[in-house]
Amino acid sequence: MPIYAEIVASGTELLMGESQDTDSSYIGSRLPALGLELRQVSLVGDDLERYVEVLKRSFTRNQFTFTTGGLGPTVDDVTREAIAKVFGEEVYVDPVQQQWLIDLFKSRGTQMPSRNIKQAWLIPSAVALPNRVGTAPGWWAERDGHVLIALPGPPRELAEMWEKEAAPRIKARVTGSVVLTRTIKTIGLGEAIIDEMATEVLGIENPYVGTYARPDGIHLRIIARGSNEQEAKRLLEPVDHKLRAIFGKNVWGIDDETPEDSVGTVLRVRRQTLATMESCTGGMLADSITNVPGSSSYYKGGIISYTNDLKVASGVPADLIETYGAVSEEVAAAMAQAIRLHLDADYGIGVTGVAGPDALEGKPPGTVYIGIAGAREAKASYHRFPANNRGLVKRRAVTAALLALRTHLLEV
Amino acid sequence: MPIYAEIVASGTELLMGESQDTDSSYIGSRLPALGLELRQVSLVGDDLERYVEVLKRSFTRNQFTFTTGGLGPTVDDVTREAIAKVFGEEVYVDPVQQQWLIDLFKSRGTQMPSRNIKQAWLIPSAVALPNRVGTAPGWWAERDGHVLIALPGPPRELAEMWEKEAAPRIKARVTGSVVLTRTIKTIGLGEAIIDEMATEVLGIENPYVGTYARPDGIHLRIIARGSNEQEAKRLLEPVDHKLRAIFGKNVWGIDDETPEDSVGTVLRVRRQTLATMESCTGGMLADSITNVPGSSSYYKGGIISYTNDLKVASGVPADLIETYGAVSEEVAAAMAQAIRLHLDADYGIGVTGVAGPDALEGKPPGTVYIGIAGAREAKASYHRFPANNRGLVKRRAVTAALLALRTHLLEV
Repeated sequence: MPIYAEIVASGTELLMGESQDTDSSYIGSRLPALGLELRQVSLVGDDLERYVEVLKRSFTRNQFTFTTGGLGPTVDDVTREAIAKVFGEEVYVDPVQQQWLIDLFKSRGTQMPSRNIKQAWLIPSAVALPNRVGTAPGWWAERDGHVLIALPGPPRELAEMWEKEAAPRIKARVTGSVVLTRTIKTIGLGEAIIDEMATEVLGIENPYVGTYARPDGIHLRIIARGSNEQEAKRLLEPVDHKLRAIFGKNVWGIDDETPEDSVGTVLRVRRQTLATMESCTGGMLADSITNVPGSSSYYKGGIISYTNDLKVASGVPADLIETYGAVSEEVAAAMAQAIRLHLDADYGIGVTGVAGPDALEGKPPGTVYIGIAGAREAKASYHRFPANNRGLVKRRAVTAALLALRTHLLEV
Repeated sequence: MPIYAEIVASGTELLMGESQDTDSSYIGSRLPALGLELRQVSLVGDDLERYVEVLKRSFTRNQFTFTTGGLGPTVDDVTREAIAKVFGEEVYVDPVQQQWLIDLFKSRGTQMPSRNIKQAWLIPSAVALPNRVGTAPGWWAERDGHVLIALPGPPRELAEMWEKEAAPRIKARVTGSVVLTRTIKTIGLGEAIIDEMATEVLGIENPYVGTYARPDGIHLRIIARGSNEQEAKRLLEPVDHKLRAIFGKNVWGIDDETPEDSVGTVLRVRRQTLATMESCTGGMLADSITNVPGSSSYYKGGIISYTNDLKVASGVPADLIETYGAVSEEVAAAMAQAIRLHLDADYGIGVTGVAGPDALEGKPPGTVYIGIAGAREAKASYHRFPANNRGLVKRRAVTAALLALRTHLLEV
């Protein structure tokens, strides 16, 4: 029997489309591993009546109801009032929470504003969940086996409270079926070939393995169900190992790993360095590489060669550009080699192409050439991406460039 | 009497937190201008029974119900089935839609797969909304003044169908109160000063003006209500003009305008050019600038100087780095000047700082110096951003750098 959950996210700004409800997907992605099945997410405004109605329905139908937002000190923050109504209880000022708030404001060198007293409220059926990064404690309220957990809206506060407070308490409570997942990301193989190679695990029901075509290659997703975490792990691990053995070097990442993480790990371990010269990606390649903490140990820098002059000044032979055009395989390879030598790096990446919306040198938007240079050779590949969006062309070119480098790194 | 709307977004991947429901905020942000008030958003899985229940409740309680997703050809795509159940009607294959689908696949050089026939379904109470960019027509179904509009999930298809089909039809139908909004983005003034300067419009109820502190400065948001678009406009425009007059050069953008749009517009009009040298932002500055279509007409390129060697090789005096450190006002200004001269541009931006998580040269994460160089001078400013997230430090530094350039452009 599955344990059901619902999320109720509150805030008029969510309904106005002014901010995106990322909290629900944060929670949603973490529930299966706790053995909870999310049935619905509801976004409501700062409207007490509607909020109470949605909460009541969820509370009676699910074992777990999560609320996000509405725990601030203003009159618009109605989550506590809504929960009190659902439980038919009166709020009171909890002296422990009150003292904590007073001390918190004192430590910040200021007095607690009187309106913040709201954040010290509780009802008899609720206990407070400590907030380590903000002024809004959460609530854990329950009756007859139904639990209602109120979490703060700011993503950083929510994540902190989830990990430190909510998840451990849920784990201690739930003894049902736990779902663990793992995503294995591959590049260089088509979906049909993957299906064929993985045939022995694709037919199984538990763990279930699905294949998904994504811009960064084919993903294999393992979903294992067990009566507890250990059992689910025992089911998942052998299939994980089998898939990694089958696809070997074609596996470039696991779960949330990005191409820039994957490349960074190899370079760091080998103590090798990288430099980039990019035109159509306009800095997004360097930006992605430098998003990885510690990237300064292997990334030497780069050039955004938005003009041919700058390409030439950075070491790309002018006659190559004249003969083949700036958007060409030859120039991509030369860019990679030039920046490698210019910055004295072990590897160089060169990217040239047409981000759009207009064509360039007669080449349509979406055309991209990626050059990779190492000590022995410089080579380039041709790509043609869907061209309906400039940012998306750039993003796909960056992914392709990083995965091309990764493939090259594993070949040498 | 407000006209109420609800959105029901379907897809198990939304509940698993695997993809973000951006469709609802797209629709949500567009409803007020059409005179509709969004009361709730519900995310449901590909579960027909639950879907029907949520739809039924919304359909009877609101004048408008929107669904997103579930219009594909697979068995998981249950939106049509759900709507048919809500209306208690049988689906049939519409010959016009069928022919359109057959022709569409033919034009792509392939035969229509048999399962796609589902996309030609209709019920007696529904008409099809043409899809210009995909294979899934939408539905406009109605009974007794209640309208249910089914839109495709892929954001590009949704946006196209919204603009070309749904919004015009809603506009023709609704004759109630219309809400128009405008956001005026300022930089360089604190919230208290803004409140004081705008005091004459801040007290009014319609149009209402609110102030919001954001990472890119203080935003003033005008919300005007009228019985139709013209009336709302007549209320909004004078306040808009007044605020722009009051804040003059401190206004850097309107509505969705980004700092890079704003800078690009000035440079394009003046036919001037820009170059960048960045270290801690690692390419994000260049990436933002080149996200603007047509940026190649004013952006000459840049250098990501992740090492001191590359800074020196690009024209930053080595003794400056030695004396003041790479993370300093002096080096930021020198980077801006060096890249301006190196790429023969009218303006140069230099950014140096500490993205984190570790300190650098004894300076804490979040420390950033921004240099701006023009024909007459090179200067730099010091910034200290919240340092809990590397990507966020980079993003704030980029915003500050672009707005610093904009301020400089308006001074010269």
